Amino acid sequence: MEPAISVLVAQFKTYAGKDGSSSTLSKDEFQNLVASQLPTLVTNASDPGVIDQLMSSLDQNNDGELTFLEFWELIGTLASKHGGFSQ
Amino acid sequence: MEPAISVLVAQFKTYAGKDGSSSTLSKDEFQNLVASQLPTLVTNASDPGVIDQLMSSLDQNNDGELTFLEFWELIGTLASKHGGFSQ
Repeated sequence: MEPAISVLVAQFKTYAGKDGSSSTLSKDEFQNLVASQLPTLVTNASDPGVIDQLMSSLDQNNDGELTFLEFWELIGTLASKHGGFSQ
Repeated sequence: MEPAISVLVAQFKTYAGKDGSSSTLSKDEFQNLVASQLPTLVTNASDPGVIDQLMSSLDQNNDGELTFLEFWELIGTLASKHGGFSQ
């Protein structure tokens, strides 16, 4: 599992590093990541309303930036649904 | 990212399917998974006390089984530390 985990960490850092804080995702960075990296798990990433809603549901301290752990929670939820686990 | 996410889901299912419920990890399954798949992130997996402590910290409903999302939280926390993100 460790190689797969490393891929996820490295890709998060790539997108998070595009502007502002290199350790968190701004809304633009989040939209870029979702649209290019999660095309199956999030099918409507080009809809700004979808991105706004996902972002606000994850951004627990409401600062407009997603931490790695906030983002991790999203992909866990998506993977759990996609993998057929009960919620 | 989706190929890496699929690897993690598939490997969770492989270990979870060894005994009992195929969608959750028993303590034995959890220990096997940690020892063989997370050797860098959890260095002392052969210590039963470490496994007991990790398991009880994650098993929120205390039923002796870890769901996918309980397990996902562990690897997120480990990956976050290993990746150098602030907690």
